[in-house]
Amino acid sequence: MQNLISIRDLEKADIVHYLETATRIESGEIVPDMGDQLAALLFFEPSTRTRFSFETAMKRMGGRTLFMDGTTSTSAKKGESFADTLMTISMYSDIIVIRSAVEGSARYAAETVDIPVINAGDGANQHPTQALLDLYSVRKTQGGLENLTIGLIGDLKFGRTVHSLVQALASFSPRFYFVSPPHLRMPEDICTDLTAHGGQYTEVTDPESIIGELDLMYVTRIQRERFADPEDYERVKDSYVIDSSMLKGVKTNFKVFHPLPRVNEISTDVDGTEYAYYFQQAKNGVVMREAIISILLGDAS
Amino acid sequence: MQNLISIRDLEKADIVHYLETATRIESGEIVPDMGDQLAALLFFEPSTRTRFSFETAMKRMGGRTLFMDGTTSTSAKKGESFADTLMTISMYSDIIVIRSAVEGSARYAAETVDIPVINAGDGANQHPTQALLDLYSVRKTQGGLENLTIGLIGDLKFGRTVHSLVQALASFSPRFYFVSPPHLRMPEDICTDLTAHGGQYTEVTDPESIIGELDLMYVTRIQRERFADPEDYERVKDSYVIDSSMLKGVKTNFKVFHPLPRVNEISTDVDGTEYAYYFQQAKNGVVMREAIISILLGDAS
Amino acid sequence: MQNLISIRDLEKADIVHYLETATRIESGEIVPDMGDQLAALLFFEPSTRTRFSFETAMKRMGGRTLFMDGTTSTSAKKGESFADTLMTISMYSDIIVIRSAVEGSARYAAETVDIPVINAGDGANQHPTQALLDLYSVRKTQGGLENLTIGLIGDLKFGRTVHSLVQALASFSPRFYFVSPPHLRMPEDICTDLTAHGGQYTEVTDPESIIGELDLMYVTRIQRERFADPEDYERVKDSYVIDSSMLKGVKTNFKVFHPLPRVNEISTDVDGTEYAYYFQQAKNGVVMREAIISILLGDAS
Repeated sequence: MQNLISIRDLEKADIVHYLETATRIESGEIVPDMGDQLAALLFFEPSTRTRFSFETAMKRMGGRTLFMDGTTSTSAKKGESFADTLMTISMYSDIIVIRSAVEGSARYAAETVDIPVINAGDGANQHPTQALLDLYSVRKTQGGLENLTIGLIGDLKFGRTVHSLVQALASFSPRFYFVSPPHLRMPEDICTDLTAHGGQYTEVTDPESIIGELDLMYVTRIQRERFADPEDYERVKDSYVIDSSMLKGVKTNFKVFHPLPRVNEISTDVDGTEYAYYFQQAKNGVVMREAIISILLGDAS
Repeated sequence: MQNLISIRDLEKADIVHYLETATRIESGEIVPDMGDQLAALLFFEPSTRTRFSFETAMKRMGGRTLFMDGTTSTSAKKGESFADTLMTISMYSDIIVIRSAVEGSARYAAETVDIPVINAGDGANQHPTQALLDLYSVRKTQGGLENLTIGLIGDLKFGRTVHSLVQALASFSPRFYFVSPPHLRMPEDICTDLTAHGGQYTEVTDPESIIGELDLMYVTRIQRERFADPEDYERVKDSYVIDSSMLKGVKTNFKVFHPLPRVNEISTDVDGTEYAYYFQQAKNGVVMREAIISILLGDAS
Repeated sequence: MQNLISIRDLEKADIVHYLETATRIESGEIVPDMGDQLAALLFFEPSTRTRFSFETAMKRMGGRTLFMDGTTSTSAKKGESFADTLMTISMYSDIIVIRSAVEGSARYAAETVDIPVINAGDGANQHPTQALLDLYSVRKTQGGLENLTIGLIGDLKFGRTVHSLVQALASFSPRFYFVSPPHLRMPEDICTDLTAHGGQYTEVTDPESIIGELDLMYVTRIQRERFADPEDYERVKDSYVIDSSMLKGVKTNFKVFHPLPRVNEISTDVDGTEYAYYFQQAKNGVVMREAIISILLGDAS
C-alpha cells in the first residue's frame, strides 16, 4: 500500500488491516512515532474539518505539517504546472494529503510524485479516509462488520459518504434500508453492485417504520440546492429529521451516525442520548488517519 | 480552575497562583511539558499579537497548535451551529483558546465543551490573559502588588485593559491617577468598585504634574474614532503623549507600560530609556500564557 | 555572522563555511537540534516555495515556526510602525526570516531587533539564501566551484538569482556564457565586476552552439511583461527553451538548473533525463537553509 486514492482500490484484507491498525493505535498497542516525518496538506478546496483531522493525526504522532490552500499557491499564479507544484512539494515532505474539487487529481498526484499520496476528497468522486473512519466507527460500536442492519437517510443520490459505505460493506452481508426523497434515491449502479456482492436493501419512505430494526442509522444532510422547486424542499425536509422521540424503541446497540457538519437533520435533543455517536465518529477520524498515515509511511508494524 | 473566562471569576488566591506559576516557569523552577497536548486557537476576530503570544507559549512548552480564523471555518458556511463547531474542535484538541467580537462567546464555549477554554478577548467584555500579564509585569517590576501609585493615561472609557487592571488591583490598596480627555473618563462603576475595595483615585488632566509620584504609568491609545468632532481629537491628542523629556524626575523604579500596538502615544525616544517596559511586557505575556495553559491542563505542579 | 542580508556581505571564507555546514548536515555529520527554537517567518510578500523551504528546514531540525503574512498583521492596520511589529515579534521568537517587496527591509529589520535576521528576498534587491543554495548545488554536482563553464539563459537583466550567482562565483575563475534576448542582457555593472574578479564571459544568442562546452546551464524564466511589444515576445520565446534534443552532446557532468517555478522554458521531456537537476536543487534549498539557520543560531559546531 503506497497510496490511498479510492476505497475501490482496497481488497477486503486491506480494509481489515487499516481497521486493525487503528484499533491497535487507539488501544496504545502501537504508538507510531512520526517525529522525523513531514506531511504536506494540500487543500485546494477548503475543508476545515478534514484538514484539522489530518493535522491533529499527524501532530498527535509527533509529526509536522506544511499547509497549502488554494489561495497560497503563488507558483500556480506564475504559470507553474500542477505537476511541478506537486514535484516541488514532494521535495520538502514525506507524504502528501490532497483535497481538490477536481475528480482524479489525487490519482494524478500519486502518479506524479515518488512519495505516498492520500486522497482527502476529490470532488464528487472519492473520500476514502471518510469511508474508513465510518467503517471503523461501525466496527467499534457493533463489534464487527458482518450481518448488520443499517439505515441510510437523507440525500442518497449525491452523498459521497453513503456510497462509499455501501460499497465497502457490500461483502459483509449487510441489510440496508434506504430512506430518501424520491429524486434523491440511491443510484442504481450502487444498488446493483451491492446485490452482486451479497448484500440486501429495501427502500422505505418513513424512517420511524424501520428504526426499531436498525443497528445504526447514518444520517446525511439534504441540501436545499438539490431541489428544483423550493416548495418541494419545504414539503419533505421534516420527513428526514431524527429527533429523540423516535428513539424510544430502538435496539440497545443502536447508534446515530453523521459525517458532519449537521444542519437540522438531527435534532439537538438527540445529542445528550446514548445513541448519539457523530462527535465520537469525528474523533475516530483522527485515529483512523493516524493509522493510514503510519501504514503508508511504513511505521505501523 | 477549569476555564479562564473573566478576571472577575478569580479570587485573590487564584490570581496569586497564576502569578506564582508564571514566576516559577520563568525562573526554570517549573518546566511544563506539553509534548502530548494540542491547543486549538479559534480566532474568529483577528488579533496577530494575542494569537502569536498563545502560539509561542504552547510551542515553547513543546505543545502543538491548530489554528482557525473566521474565514477558514467552512462548516459554518454550510450551516453548522457554533455549538457543533466547538464540539467538533473539542474532539481534536485538549484546550480551546477563543477570540471573538461577540461578548459572552467564551463563556458559551466553556459551557458547551468538556475541555478547558481560555478567553482571549470577547469583544468589549473581557481579556483576562491580558489582565494577568499586566499584573505579572507590575509585580515583576515593582516587587509586589501592594500600595502602588499608578497613572493610567489615554482612553479610560473604552480601554478594556485598564478596566481589568483597576479591578484586579483594587484589593491591593492602590493609589490611581486617571488622566484622560473629559469624554473618555474612567466609568463611574469602575471607580465606585475601586473605592469599595479600598483603593483610591484622583482624576488629573496633566500627566506631567503627577509623573514624579508614580511607580508606573500605563499608557493606552486614544482612537480618533472616539471623537465626534475630528477637531476635538486634534486639539487634545498631544496632551496624552509621553516623551523622554517628561521622564527627568521620575522614581528609579518607574516604568512605562503599554498593551501595544502603539501609534504615537509614547514617543519612540522613550524606547531606549530604562523606563520603557512595553516590549518586555509583551514578552511577559508568553510566560503568563504558559502558566495559564499549564494550570488549566493540570501540568503546573 | 549574526544576520544574512546580502550575498555581498559575505567573504569567500563565509561562503565556504555555509557550504561546508550544509554538506555536513546533509551527510549526517552534524545534526542540528532546534527543539528549543522558534523561527518567525514574516512573508509580507507571498512566496509559497521559499516559505515552505524555510518552514521545512526549521521543522526538519525539530524547531517551531510562527507564520505571518501581509494580510494577517492586524497591528499594522491599527497604525503600528514596522519597527514596533518587528520588536514585538522578536519578543516571541529566536530568529526572523523576512520576505518583502520593499528593498532594504531585511537590513532595516536586522538593525531594529536583537535576534538574527535572514533576508528571504527583498524586492529586486537580494535573495541570499537562493544564491547559497545555488552555489551548494553547483558544488555538489561539479565537485567544486573553481574553473567551471556555466551557461546562463533567459532574462539576465531582471533575474535576481543569476546576478547573485555571477557575483558569488566571480572569484572562482568561472567562464560564463550569457544567452538572452538583446533587451534582457546581463547588466554592465555585473559584467564589469565579474571581469574585475578574474571571471570571463561571452554573450551568445544560440544556446545550442555552446551547450556541449558547459558544466551546467542555469535557465530562468522570461516574463511576457518584460516585452513592450507582445509580438517581440512571441518571436523570441522559443529560442530560449531547452528540450531533450539539445542534450545529445553534452558533457557527462552536465546539469540543468532552474530556480523554479518553471513555465515552459525547460521542456518536460528533460525531466526524466539524468541532466535535470531543478527539483533536486529545490531539495538542496532545505539543507542550505538548515545550515543558515543553525549557523545564525549558533548551533552548527
